Amino acid sequence: MATEPPLEVHLDLLSQPCRAVHILLACTRTPHRVRTVALRKGENRTAEFTKLNPMRRVPVMVDGKFTLTESDAILKYLATKPGVPEHWYPRQPERRARVDEYTAWHHSNTRPHAAKVFILEVLLPAQTGGQVEQERLDGALAQLDATLDRLESMFLRRQPFLCGDDVSVADLLALCELMQPAASGRDVLQGRPQLQRWRSRVQAAVCHAFHQAHAVLLAVRERRRAKL
Amino acid sequence: MATEPPLEVHLDLLSQPCRAVHILLACTRTPHRVRTVALRKGENRTAEFTKLNPMRRVPVMVDGKFTLTESDAILKYLATKPGVPEHWYPRQPERRARVDEYTAWHHSNTRPHAAKVFILEVLLPAQTGGQVEQERLDGALAQLDATLDRLESMFLRRQPFLCGDDVSVADLLALCELMQPAASGRDVLQGRPQLQRWRSRVQAAVCHAFHQAHAVLLAVRERRRAKL
Repeated sequence: MATEPPLEVHLDLLSQPCRAVHILLACTRTPHRVRTVALRKGENRTAEFTKLNPMRRVPVMVDGKFTLTESDAILKYLATKPGVPEHWYPRQPERRARVDEYTAWHHSNTRPHAAKVFILEVLLPAQTGGQVEQERLDGALAQLDATLDRLESMFLRRQPFLCGDDVSVADLLALCELMQPAASGRDVLQGRPQLQRWRSRVQAAVCHAFHQAHAVLLAVRERRRAKL
Repeated sequence: MATEPPLEVHLDLLSQPCRAVHILLACTRTPHRVRTVALRKGENRTAEFTKLNPMRRVPVMVDGKFTLTESDAILKYLATKPGVPEHWYPRQPERRARVDEYTAWHHSNTRPHAAKVFILEVLLPAQTGGQVEQERLDGALAQLDATLDRLESMFLRRQPFLCGDDVSVADLLALCELMQPAASGRDVLQGRPQLQRWRSRVQAAVCHAFHQAHAVLLAVRERRRAKL
């Protein structure tokens, strides 16, 4: 019998959605090989990577002859593989729809608003050597606050995880996004006990995988602290 | 036997994602009742509607005791109901992942970029009575152009529909979004024969449902033309 080539994922752990994919693979013990694509070195712009994903974005998953982009789609594809616990992406139509509802909302809310804080506070100053634009940052923080309000008052209103009683791919996407501003030392969940308890629950559910996936991001924070 | 209450959808046909839901329901002959929520009259801000969806956004679907928001999630939920032809949202994992890949991409590309052209060219001038801000409109058109390039060079490169050989919910979401700037008389697919052929294919696949869903939008265009 010929051996199947292992599933491959092309990731940069400084990218939020890549961490979500990394955590799911680790938690579900899905055999896989990680290929690192260092965005800061432009490794997403090589001819080889552009052939793999003309969008030049990570994550990319390669399962045999099937190449897939977009973390949302990759997570759902991986979560429906045989043997993966169903809570990650439930099969029951109403429960599945709840996960689809959050992930659709995520793309226009949690993702852009948390990412913007990181971009303004960490990425742009690092690229240009300039100061943080305080007014734009304040605007971004206000937008993120409105998103956090809704995570509390809507998705977590009556349940411990974003889409029900157990952890799902929605929690991974959300938490990895909300961790991103930690690169500057900012905890966006400060003063929000409800969301902090949710974060603890997700961390407990995914255990070592969380710390493993976030080690690179938190090392950035430590380097920045050392410089101050 | 007690009669099941029919599935209800709360829609404004001037909203792009609402039209996609409307078309799917019509094409699949799913028994349903439409409740119109006229956004321009603020009907999404009533106490009754806010109770239904605290986000105050359309579409909303109510299936018995199950209330669902987010067009992406609603379309996928409806498409997996028994009796609905599978091509709308294929069950085979790779084919389904292709639809999830497009819809995830859609939220950060087709949707915001086409919507922005409509907002700048139609909505803001109607609300403020002011002129179109040409510089911002040019910027939005350039972003939309980049999105259209990718629809052609990536999603439609080797296949007649966005996610394969047959029409899916992805095509509905995309086309309804790209139709929105038509309110000002603008055809964003002008000079793009590949995308025009795709539009004709989708229109043919959904037949009368397309025209029925777009009648209100095209009436806006006619009223604007009459005023000029």
